[in-house]
Amino acid sequence: MFEVIPLGTGAAIPTRHRHLSACALRREGRLFLFDGGEGTQHRLLEAGLNRSRLEAVFVTHLHGDHLFGLPGLLTTLALLERTRPLTVAGPPGIERVLSGLPGLARSDLPFEVRWVELAEGFTHRIVYETDDVTVEARPLDHRVVCAGYRFEEKPRLGSIDGEAARAAGVTEGWQYEALKRRETVTLADGTRLGPAGLVGPERPGAAFAYVLDTRPCEGGRLLARGADLLVHEATFTHDLHASAERTGHSTAREAAEVAAHAGARRLLLTHISARYADPAPLVAEARAVFPDADAAEELRRYEVAPRPASA
Amino acid sequence: MFEVIPLGTGAAIPTRHRHLSACALRREGRLFLFDGGEGTQHRLLEAGLNRSRLEAVFVTHLHGDHLFGLPGLLTTLALLERTRPLTVAGPPGIERVLSGLPGLARSDLPFEVRWVELAEGFTHRIVYETDDVTVEARPLDHRVVCAGYRFEEKPRLGSIDGEAARAAGVTEGWQYEALKRRETVTLADGTRLGPAGLVGPERPGAAFAYVLDTRPCEGGRLLARGADLLVHEATFTHDLHASAERTGHSTAREAAEVAAHAGARRLLLTHISARYADPAPLVAEARAVFPDADAAEELRRYEVAPRPASA
Repeated sequence: MFEVIPLGTGAAIPTRHRHLSACALRREGRLFLFDGGEGTQHRLLEAGLNRSRLEAVFVTHLHGDHLFGLPGLLTTLALLERTRPLTVAGPPGIERVLSGLPGLARSDLPFEVRWVELAEGFTHRIVYETDDVTVEARPLDHRVVCAGYRFEEKPRLGSIDGEAARAAGVTEGWQYEALKRRETVTLADGTRLGPAGLVGPERPGAAFAYVLDTRPCEGGRLLARGADLLVHEATFTHDLHASAERTGHSTAREAAEVAAHAGARRLLLTHISARYADPAPLVAEARAVFPDADAAEELRRYEVAPRPASA
Repeated sequence: MFEVIPLGTGAAIPTRHRHLSACALRREGRLFLFDGGEGTQHRLLEAGLNRSRLEAVFVTHLHGDHLFGLPGLLTTLALLERTRPLTVAGPPGIERVLSGLPGLARSDLPFEVRWVELAEGFTHRIVYETDDVTVEARPLDHRVVCAGYRFEEKPRLGSIDGEAARAAGVTEGWQYEALKRRETVTLADGTRLGPAGLVGPERPGAAFAYVLDTRPCEGGRLLARGADLLVHEATFTHDLHASAERTGHSTAREAAEVAAHAGARRLLLTHISARYADPAPLVAEARAVFPDADAAEELRRYEVAPRPASA
């Protein structure tokens, strides 16, 4: 269970009501960022999110509207005297571009940046992993090297029925733990005991896919597979399909087709062209294909929980 | 006569209510920028200022809080298909830093950037000039190479007393123009006629000085000499004088002393540390030295007019 908070939902040029691409994710007090367009650090403040809790930043591609907020954010973390390392994952060249700026050289920062550069032509990579979560990257189809990301909680072990286990002769803590890992244990009296009937099924984690900027593509569909929340770009309505093709973007209908094909549970449209003051036409078009679609609302907190176990 | 519109008045780190250093100036439909901290393009929108009217940007120094809004602004101008050249003046290295970013190489932009790089050790330079205005730069005293700027309208010719001129025998347009330039003309009958008694005195233009980041210094005082509006940094109150000295900044009292020494007409304090949620202590301290002092208010339009001619 975690929260996704869109910070900027506009494409290319900010408008009075839409900021540039950035999306925060908060899980157990830790903060993650997907893209960092200009203004990201200010949007974090406005969202009431603590910059110091930032763990990692995942950058889709090196276009300014996804990138130009990171220099200021890193500078601010330095001024706040951060010492904890920060992971920054992104396309090839991201380290050179960012660390070439004033104040961002390795020797200027009081903390280590762990750069994770995707190689041109990569097909899949785990870019971040802890005991609880993984973040994987897959290539998208844009005008420059571009990656989408999937943030996923690892499945948690099934819960054990303590009373039934005790009745079966389980006495030691290590036996409980081994059974939860679905191992067979040997009890003091020599009985061999397996988890069947004692341990429930693994409980799946929640999954979030961040897919922009891109034409609808295989990488996006794989990232979105069964995701509890898919944030997909929808720069244009489908009448401007030719513009979407030419510029390497998706229409709202195409975003909805990706969500439907991937079996995602919920779709939020983002990276909306400045031509749409009101996103209603994009939403209507998406819902015709995938009913649980909305335009991402900036600063709203979207709770992302796994599918109910009964599913 | 022109307007000065502070876009960001905070120091180093943005707060919920103060943005990073940037200050717009609007004169006869043309727009000028002094510094361009992160968020500048969004602040222009919020101020209702048309980005397309931008003529020139004057950057004080290469610290991120004065600079990191320019990549996004230039990218946006490119997306808006600007073709008119843009002047960008600043310290040595500014071209290398900015044009090294994605989308900002010379070949990426549909317009020419006219870089005006100040040399390390420069003492004075006119960085921008038209028939109507000049912008001059002088060195300030900060931790890195830093320049302050003075934007000044050129004096306008005195107005001619048309009735008196006709009575004196002036008949031709070129004679009026020559007299206004305080030249002597020869009339049709051979009379030589000078401007005395016919042409009023030159009318001075308005002057604006932008002085940050800096310790109080000679460059700042020269830029502020007789200025109708001085925007001066005041990062700290004077009890934190030692911090100001150590970090190359000014206290509010010191900013007021510069204004008083230079005979400026009005002082606005800016670059205010995040520690001051309310700028009242800075303003009080400045007014004790220089009564016409205020904290610069973001997005307020300050009219800058020359001294009345009677002065």
